[in-house]
Amino acid sequence: MAAFERILTVKEAVLSRRSIRRFKPNPVPEHHLREILSLALLAPSSNNLQPWRVVVVREQELKERLRAVAHNQAQVSSAPAVLVIYSDMKDALARVEETLHPGFSEEQKQLRATNLRRAWEHKTDEEREEWGKSQGFILLGFLMLLARAFGYDTVPMGGFDEEGVKAVLELPAHVKITALLPIGVADENGYQHHRHSLERVVQWR
Amino acid sequence: MAAFERILTVKEAVLSRRSIRRFKPNPVPEHHLREILSLALLAPSSNNLQPWRVVVVREQELKERLRAVAHNQAQVSSAPAVLVIYSDMKDALARVEETLHPGFSEEQKQLRATNLRRAWEHKTDEEREEWGKSQGFILLGFLMLLARAFGYDTVPMGGFDEEGVKAVLELPAHVKITALLPIGVADENGYQHHRHSLERVVQWR
Repeated sequence: MAAFERILTVKEAVLSRRSIRRFKPNPVPEHHLREILSLALLAPSSNNLQPWRVVVVREQELKERLRAVAHNQAQVSSAPAVLVIYSDMKDALARVEETLHPGFSEEQKQLRATNLRRAWEHKTDEEREEWGKSQGFILLGFLMLLARAFGYDTVPMGGFDEEGVKAVLELPAHVKITALLPIGVADENGYQHHRHSLERVVQWR
Repeated sequence: MAAFERILTVKEAVLSRRSIRRFKPNPVPEHHLREILSLALLAPSSNNLQPWRVVVVREQELKERLRAVAHNQAQVSSAPAVLVIYSDMKDALARVEETLHPGFSEEQKQLRATNLRRAWEHKTDEEREEWGKSQGFILLGFLMLLARAFGYDTVPMGGFDEEGVKAVLELPAHVKITALLPIGVADENGYQHHRHSLERVVQWR
């Protein structure tokens, strides 16, 4: 299906999503990327902290350098765009007031901001960012299904040199990388799903 | 919208999803839960390890005990069902052959299984399960959107006593809990989304 012709249902998106590593050369128009990202950013996070940040990489030279720190996987430089999802809890906590719901009174906001900062103050940067990084997987799930719904394909990548990615993108030292997500129009079918059965992983109580 | 009348598009599901803490007493029929869970289990994970496991809690007494270890939040006992998502990397690695794609030859499978086990053997249980727990957030994202697409609502919960949840559900000592996800038919509107702007969290390169 051509991109943005019809928006898929969640069921269709889940069933048709495959990890795609070969993409057509067509770029993903910026307004499509903006639509996908804007919607994905509605994903929930604990305390609405939204610790996730994204770099959209389209410059060819930068994609090549990213590929070099991602086990040289070809899709990093051949996909028209790569979304790099990372955490920045330092930024999230410094400006936590922005994420507090406008329905709260100023007093409630101050109390909540203080409590949130207090809850994290005895943690190390490492612990904070590990948590932020893991929340990023919620955003990743939303991004993959939104991309698919609009006719694009992706491949979630967890295999990369984290410090290398940070260096290439000039990200702050404290952040952590959740995933790389190449995105584009598929030029292969991908593998069929191969998953555990419901019976194997779900318990009913 | 009544459950299962029409399946929402991904865009509709993302836009209409809210964290819902008040549910109608109607139970979620088991075949609906099975449909939502079966589809969600198609979510991708690194190396297809699928380290996630789910307990579907519907027994009232068990929900009450779960609530007691989840900061007494009312939705845990008032929702018709609570999905508890946890990791079990010990189980995932012990039977990793099951997750290797049938397209691989026996030789390739053996090599991959050995490499995967080797990659994790110097890690502690804690490190392994932290990783598995964080992958669970991909499943969580899929579950929330699927539930919404089928007319149900959810609230992702990260606030609970992890050891308490494990004790109540009699889970193995090594596992970690990703989230609790009460699910049912909404009996409130929930709060409007309040999120960072695209400009605030996305960089274009």
